[in-house]
Amino acid sequence: MSSTVAVPPAGATPAAAPLQPRDPEWRARVERSFGLQGAMRTIGARIVLLEPGLCELALPYAEAVAQQQGFFHGGIIGTLGDSAGGYAGYSMMSADSEVLTTEYKLNLLSPAVGQWLVARGEVVKPGRTLTVTRVDVFVAEAPQEAPRKLCATLLQTLIRVDKPAGM
Amino acid sequence: MSSTVAVPPAGATPAAAPLQPRDPEWRARVERSFGLQGAMRTIGARIVLLEPGLCELALPYAEAVAQQQGFFHGGIIGTLGDSAGGYAGYSMMSADSEVLTTEYKLNLLSPAVGQWLVARGEVVKPGRTLTVTRVDVFVAEAPQEAPRKLCATLLQTLIRVDKPAGM
Amino acid sequence: MSSTVAVPPAGATPAAAPLQPRDPEWRARVERSFGLQGAMRTIGARIVLLEPGLCELALPYAEAVAQQQGFFHGGIIGTLGDSAGGYAGYSMMSADSEVLTTEYKLNLLSPAVGQWLVARGEVVKPGRTLTVTRVDVFVAEAPQEAPRKLCATLLQTLIRVDKPAGM
Amino acid sequence: MSSTVAVPPAGATPAAAPLQPRDPEWRARVERSFGLQGAMRTIGARIVLLEPGLCELALPYAEAVAQQQGFFHGGIIGTLGDSAGGYAGYSMMSADSEVLTTEYKLNLLSPAVGQWLVARGEVVKPGRTLTVTRVDVFVAEAPQEAPRKLCATLLQTLIRVDKPAGM
Repeated sequence: MSSTVAVPPAGATPAAAPLQPRDPEWRARVERSFGLQGAMRTIGARIVLLEPGLCELALPYAEAVAQQQGFFHGGIIGTLGDSAGGYAGYSMMSADSEVLTTEYKLNLLSPAVGQWLVARGEVVKPGRTLTVTRVDVFVAEAPQEAPRKLCATLLQTLIRVDKPAGM
Repeated sequence: MSSTVAVPPAGATPAAAPLQPRDPEWRARVERSFGLQGAMRTIGARIVLLEPGLCELALPYAEAVAQQQGFFHGGIIGTLGDSAGGYAGYSMMSADSEVLTTEYKLNLLSPAVGQWLVARGEVVKPGRTLTVTRVDVFVAEAPQEAPRKLCATLLQTLIRVDKPAGM
Repeated sequence: MSSTVAVPPAGATPAAAPLQPRDPEWRARVERSFGLQGAMRTIGARIVLLEPGLCELALPYAEAVAQQQGFFHGGIIGTLGDSAGGYAGYSMMSADSEVLTTEYKLNLLSPAVGQWLVARGEVVKPGRTLTVTRVDVFVAEAPQEAPRKLCATLLQTLIRVDKPAGM
Repeated sequence: MSSTVAVPPAGATPAAAPLQPRDPEWRARVERSFGLQGAMRTIGARIVLLEPGLCELALPYAEAVAQQQGFFHGGIIGTLGDSAGGYAGYSMMSADSEVLTTEYKLNLLSPAVGQWLVARGEVVKPGRTLTVTRVDVFVAEAPQEAPRKLCATLLQTLIRVDKPAGM
């Protein structure tokens, strides 16, 4: 054992090379699906960054998304994170795909106190049936280009299903 | 190996004997905390059952809590489940306690299609610092006394912290 | 809200009616697969109960499966639990199936101190592609028919894949 | 929404600045504890890299750690990952500390086929009571300085407890 070997990069962070989407219309497809999520409107969430295999969502603080001490509610953090991971994964799926979450695990790391909640979802492992994503959730004073404080992290599994006919 | 031995009861289901709360005012304390959760009002959740170590919450279907296909959103399922488990655990804590979720894991088992979403949280292991709960989430035509279809299950860890002075 | 309504049974516990296996040779298939797991022999695990959708595995205490304080190692608890859930699920699959774990979540509830470690896996939701199981892990003085103390619980997702030709 | 903003770095990856251990004897303390884990000897695991907040463990392939198809067993992957995360966290704790895992979540991403299994654990959030770690698990032809293929990832919570007197 030696501590002098070079530290290899962690493998589960996103690849340096950008992921190649299969569907050239991936962006419009993701934005359309996001627009259909009533829950995203309810909590005030918006897309702030969208790349193949990567999706950032943000929502401004309001009492309507708080828990009993006035922090962002853990379930709301999970809701934003679930959608950020879901759309990161959905961006890499084929045009005839619908996406469903099969499971996620959320660790709340510090009290979520701030003006904005930002969830950054990234694909760890794309797959034909199952896709695994990782989502980091931050509090920040602005949705973009601001210092961020990590408050939660998720590990999520998505399943691709065929889009119902006519949708 | 033999398949003829009696099947012992699963141990992680709640004990037959009711749990004994430490705080005689546990019910009022839980209801007060629930009333302070803006996120619960936002999604329309209410308490339908409250016993020591047990809490059921329900919310009616609305587009405002739906995902892109019109099912209950996975994040909303997690939000309701997180609070149901949290208040199941909080009911067993001492009067000077505040409760925070440290983590939860949500498995979505079937499309959450129905008039009501009902989350039933139960304490699996109460503890001085950490409490573990299990939450089953159902869809049903009514919040109580109706057939229920299991649509999700959570496993959750809570941490007890001292209540801030003056609260 | 009322606390006087009857408490409905938790839905995610196994159904009262026994599950119907699709493969009449399910027992032999499970036992054969178990016999092929080198890791089960390494840790000394054996099958103690096998029913459709239900599998109990047990292993005797040894320093070889301990952590630094002499308790059963958390990873060994996960290993036994992973296999118990996996074979509970595999018992319900068709004859041409192979089973893989896609993910599991383990909560360690109390120090695992005892002569035997017993993992009881049960199918929560069988499915064509994905199966979700729940596993409770106990310490006991004997592998069967003894009082058991819950020490851990898992929530697991399995995926069915086609058995490779010739196996 | 715009896709042209600079992509901020993911927050949950380890900080660029090295973590500062509280215990100058952290390395000896970690190595001593690792040496006491019978389960690590049983599976053939060794430490290959140890820095404050970072621990890599590796084990060579053997049938003794395989599942029914000859891949590394998912439970063994969890066992190695649990210890890698545990010692990453333990390295940051004070001299009078003992560490226990409270929970972990393991996602298996691809069949674990290779000569070596390498688990790299990193502290995401150190804390006085709870520490959260992330562990990536790889297969490789050699334990160090070789290309690695990600096969699994864990998210783990550790709890610090006082070391029993006399240990």
